[in-house]
Amino acid sequence: MLWNNELTRLLKVQYPIVQAPMLGVTSPEMVAAVSNAGGLGSLPVGGLSPEKTRELIHKVKQLTHKPFAVNLFAHSIPEYNIQEAEAMRALLKQLKQEHGLATEIPELDSLKFYTYEEQIPILIDESVPVVSFTFGIPDDASLQQLKQHGTILIGTATCVDEAIVLEQKGVHAITLQGIEAGGHRGSFLHDALPQIGLMALVPMAAKVVKIPLIASGAINSGATVKAAFTLGAVGVQIGTAFIASTESLAIPAYKEALATAQDTDTALTQVFSGRWARGIHNAFMEQLENSGSTLPPYPVLNSLTGALRAEAQKQNNGTFTNLWAGQAASMYVRQKNSAEILMDIIKNTEQ
Amino acid sequence: MLWNNELTRLLKVQYPIVQAPMLGVTSPEMVAAVSNAGGLGSLPVGGLSPEKTRELIHKVKQLTHKPFAVNLFAHSIPEYNIQEAEAMRALLKQLKQEHGLATEIPELDSLKFYTYEEQIPILIDESVPVVSFTFGIPDDASLQQLKQHGTILIGTATCVDEAIVLEQKGVHAITLQGIEAGGHRGSFLHDALPQIGLMALVPMAAKVVKIPLIASGAINSGATVKAAFTLGAVGVQIGTAFIASTESLAIPAYKEALATAQDTDTALTQVFSGRWARGIHNAFMEQLENSGSTLPPYPVLNSLTGALRAEAQKQNNGTFTNLWAGQAASMYVRQKNSAEILMDIIKNTEQ
Repeated sequence: MLWNNELTRLLKVQYPIVQAPMLGVTSPEMVAAVSNAGGLGSLPVGGLSPEKTRELIHKVKQLTHKPFAVNLFAHSIPEYNIQEAEAMRALLKQLKQEHGLATEIPELDSLKFYTYEEQIPILIDESVPVVSFTFGIPDDASLQQLKQHGTILIGTATCVDEAIVLEQKGVHAITLQGIEAGGHRGSFLHDALPQIGLMALVPMAAKVVKIPLIASGAINSGATVKAAFTLGAVGVQIGTAFIASTESLAIPAYKEALATAQDTDTALTQVFSGRWARGIHNAFMEQLENSGSTLPPYPVLNSLTGALRAEAQKQNNGTFTNLWAGQAASMYVRQKNSAEILMDIIKNTEQ
Repeated sequence: MLWNNELTRLLKVQYPIVQAPMLGVTSPEMVAAVSNAGGLGSLPVGGLSPEKTRELIHKVKQLTHKPFAVNLFAHSIPEYNIQEAEAMRALLKQLKQEHGLATEIPELDSLKFYTYEEQIPILIDESVPVVSFTFGIPDDASLQQLKQHGTILIGTATCVDEAIVLEQKGVHAITLQGIEAGGHRGSFLHDALPQIGLMALVPMAAKVVKIPLIASGAINSGATVKAAFTLGAVGVQIGTAFIASTESLAIPAYKEALATAQDTDTALTQVFSGRWARGIHNAFMEQLENSGSTLPPYPVLNSLTGALRAEAQKQNNGTFTNLWAGQAASMYVRQKNSAEILMDIIKNTEQ
């Protein structure tokens, strides 16, 4: 059978299709809808407080008894330059005034950063079936704890040697994130950001890695699912196609931008969060990039821009918030619920 | 049949597989070997003199009676800043002395640039069956002349709207160059270099363009050929896999660098020619990029670095010449002749 493979057996799901964890877009309802339809929903909790993490997991559990994943940001909190961060605050204050965004840019003293370490006990306590992570690898103790509780672990790699390291660390499967993918890059091993297309990345990783590979980036149709499988993946992760779903938290302006996005309309940027991510190019990206300002590292910049982005979203203003999207953003933009989107792609693949 | 499609009928070849034109690597022997084996060999003549163009075409014709392509650079000669070009000459002189490369960096006055317009009469006179081009589109008069003589025209696109423009101009087929591809980017429509992976580019182009699409970038195996076809291409163009062939002009150091290149070892650079191209990262790239120098445009910089690169090649020094390669460089590096390389990929696809 097309769908019965090592990944579906590992994850105990019907289809080897993972809904990508998209912070700010993915709701518990989206996660549950995808899992109930036979895929693997993924709840993003990267950077959230332990309390919020538990609350969201509870919501998902109320809506589904099927396996789902919780996605962590496996980074550490960096030192940062206070003067540069204050300069960025000043720039953001100026922008919010110029653009009528009535919000406060937070004081540096008020910033509170949560780490994945604080979330691990909750994931274990809640018996979360699958834990996926990006931006790096949790420490060995955390990995061991999760594995001892039977948790399935999925890491994220953007190049072959990241995949090799993840396999050596004992994860059960790897998401290969092609340069086509929207949102944050999961890269963690190189100073120069790996920018490998799936046509190169999947066969090269499949040649040297034994565990199941999940291709992500521009997957949104039967043709792309089949191509990913032909290249050596046994699963796919789909993000952008779910942004326009009825369970999505995306504002209308975001969904509209997706519908008309050309392949050249997305770009990689660090200006929203301090980490590289792909989104539809907009005024905020242009103004920050042209400002010549030094960007504080993730998660500092992410927190500094957070209130401004939240206010832009309230105003349905797509020019001052992140519009994460993959390179094939416009290929799947119909307003349907997440289960229908999943089943459309499955039927299209079976044809 | 797997191979009999609109592209093989258009090109009058057995297999819809094009050997990529690689200036400095592709010999007339390589072109003829691929065409004789049933693919479409491509002779690169971009920037060459009319005399050299005719000479190379004659060599190919002596070696094959099968269809082959001649590849043009469809650019115009730009104005350039003399002071910046002199500053670059000074930097290159310093580098050649530091690195023992006994050659002269040419005087600006001595530079002679040839354009595709001067080559068109020769292509027509020689009844070249297929003319492919990159870096833009030949002027309408040239396109009409070639078409009136029955020449099949193949343009190069790196994003969907470049493909749309090419179709509107009446070309017969389009090479879609994914970000995975080695060598020069064919981009011509946007200030920001399109960097679209094939997983996104092929389906998006296939949705809006009717003429045959040829996928290029990281294609080197049955799996990648099949994936490209699944995505909507009806042909593939293969470059890097032929660099290690016995007919290749690549120096041993270049072939060795390919064999060990990881997916993260290639990068896009403008420092060799003034145009963006993907190659294995080396000392020349690092030194020029870190110099902070303004780069003269193509083909000025290309001519300025030419003698230095030629001398490095004479010395089998891979650190001071361009090592163009795609992101999957190491996936096909066995020393075989070009016909064997083609047939390996065909057999692997038929399995």
